[in-house]
Amino acid sequence: MKRAIGVIDSGVGGLTVVSELMRQLPKEKLIYVGDTARCPYGPRSKEEVQQFTWEMVDFLLEKDIKMLVVACNTATAFTLDSLKKHLSIPVIGVIQPGARAAIKFTKNNCIGIIGTEGTIRSHAYTDALKNIKAELDIYAKACPMFVPMVEQGIMEGPKAIQVVKEALLPMMKQKQMDTLILGCTHYPLLKSTIQSVVGTNVTLISSSEETARETSTILEMQHLLNHTEVFPIHQFYTTGDLEMFMQISERIFKERNLQMITIKKAVLHQMQDSK
Amino acid sequence: MKRAIGVIDSGVGGLTVVSELMRQLPKEKLIYVGDTARCPYGPRSKEEVQQFTWEMVDFLLEKDIKMLVVACNTATAFTLDSLKKHLSIPVIGVIQPGARAAIKFTKNNCIGIIGTEGTIRSHAYTDALKNIKAELDIYAKACPMFVPMVEQGIMEGPKAIQVVKEALLPMMKQKQMDTLILGCTHYPLLKSTIQSVVGTNVTLISSSEETARETSTILEMQHLLNHTEVFPIHQFYTTGDLEMFMQISERIFKERNLQMITIKKAVLHQMQDSK
Repeated sequence: MKRAIGVIDSGVGGLTVVSELMRQLPKEKLIYVGDTARCPYGPRSKEEVQQFTWEMVDFLLEKDIKMLVVACNTATAFTLDSLKKHLSIPVIGVIQPGARAAIKFTKNNCIGIIGTEGTIRSHAYTDALKNIKAELDIYAKACPMFVPMVEQGIMEGPKAIQVVKEALLPMMKQKQMDTLILGCTHYPLLKSTIQSVVGTNVTLISSSEETARETSTILEMQHLLNHTEVFPIHQFYTTGDLEMFMQISERIFKERNLQMITIKKAVLHQMQDSK
Repeated sequence: MKRAIGVIDSGVGGLTVVSELMRQLPKEKLIYVGDTARCPYGPRSKEEVQQFTWEMVDFLLEKDIKMLVVACNTATAFTLDSLKKHLSIPVIGVIQPGARAAIKFTKNNCIGIIGTEGTIRSHAYTDALKNIKAELDIYAKACPMFVPMVEQGIMEGPKAIQVVKEALLPMMKQKQMDTLILGCTHYPLLKSTIQSVVGTNVTLISSSEETARETSTILEMQHLLNHTEVFPIHQFYTTGDLEMFMQISERIFKERNLQMITIKKAVLHQMQDSK
């Protein structure tokens, strides 16, 4: 099964999912599209997010992907059902894997969720959790400062600790949660800072890690795993500035992994037509 | 989707998977068959294990289950492929979920596996791990004393610590593993003792927890999750002594959970015919 796994995101956050896919499924080839030209999706209408997402999906379907990973919380919240309904390949989003992992880890049934304002407002994590287990005590909080901070490259140090403390300490004092979902694909880059602020008694759930894990589960169930020994060359596409995208990729991936990646500009169909 | 999830095991070890399914999927009804009359499967031939497993599966198919969980390592090793091939419902074993979780957790790519002699001899975990990620350093060890000890009710205290130390300390000294797979459904009952012996730097992977988590993933993918609020009454069947099975169930499940369980004697088809 040498067909690739397709991964889509509104920008660069989904690269944390790609990084985990490369680590947990090293034999699989990945094709990533980041719609950096139109990022962020958070403040956009449902219709716009659906249209943009489908443009990326069409781009990947032409490359004959065997599975689709929606590595963006907003796109997952707005388009997962429609993608699942219309595509003949398996589709996974980032929200349900995080929710299932949190249910597995919590001992006191008290779970926190942090994400962008759009994700928290959509109640997508709360719905995913309650759908499976009604008796959970859930506390959700938007952390609008985290993504801009990460995009500036600030992930550790006194400034990062200060911002994370201001966002999370009031929440931690209020509830005795033992599990915290990092409900945004940027947040794994802040993991060590967040862990130092909330303490080691709180299990942090990375949607990126969990989505990669469940991609592995689904590929096996569908007999789509690639068992042959290969060193795949992954293809990354950005709709926006190539230079900026390369710089961020260098920051996320180690040198060895960078050698396994090609980065190109993507022209999505709708954008081409409107020129 | 009010149809039940079917769970089969050679005896009582699979009840740790049931316990996790009840915790992680509280809206789902479970039907469990433990073949205690013919337990253990470990020393039996492949053909015998396959025949016994299919007898339990036929018993459950008559009850219209929507998914099958093979909560026994030996049965998983010998029959999973054949069950997947012939059944139209989703099937999951206990080996692959543990392997995937270990790959997710390990940071240094050094993974330990402990299990019964049969499981270790089958190389099923090693194969499952290497199939996905070739560059793992794997160390597997049979712990034949653990199951008899658990079945005698010894799970904590000086005796348990002594037995676990003798089995695991030589292995821990030899390899710098950061992740240890509890590759037997009895072992989660020894989890705190094992953790105290190997230290907190080693992540213990419970196949039972991970199998329940992946059952959740697969039910959602197949649109088989039960979203309605129910308090299911689970059905447990044993092919062996009812009294003994009830005593072990009481030890594993808390009082609140015991009220949600009925326990009956199962008569499998082949056994009936041979009378």
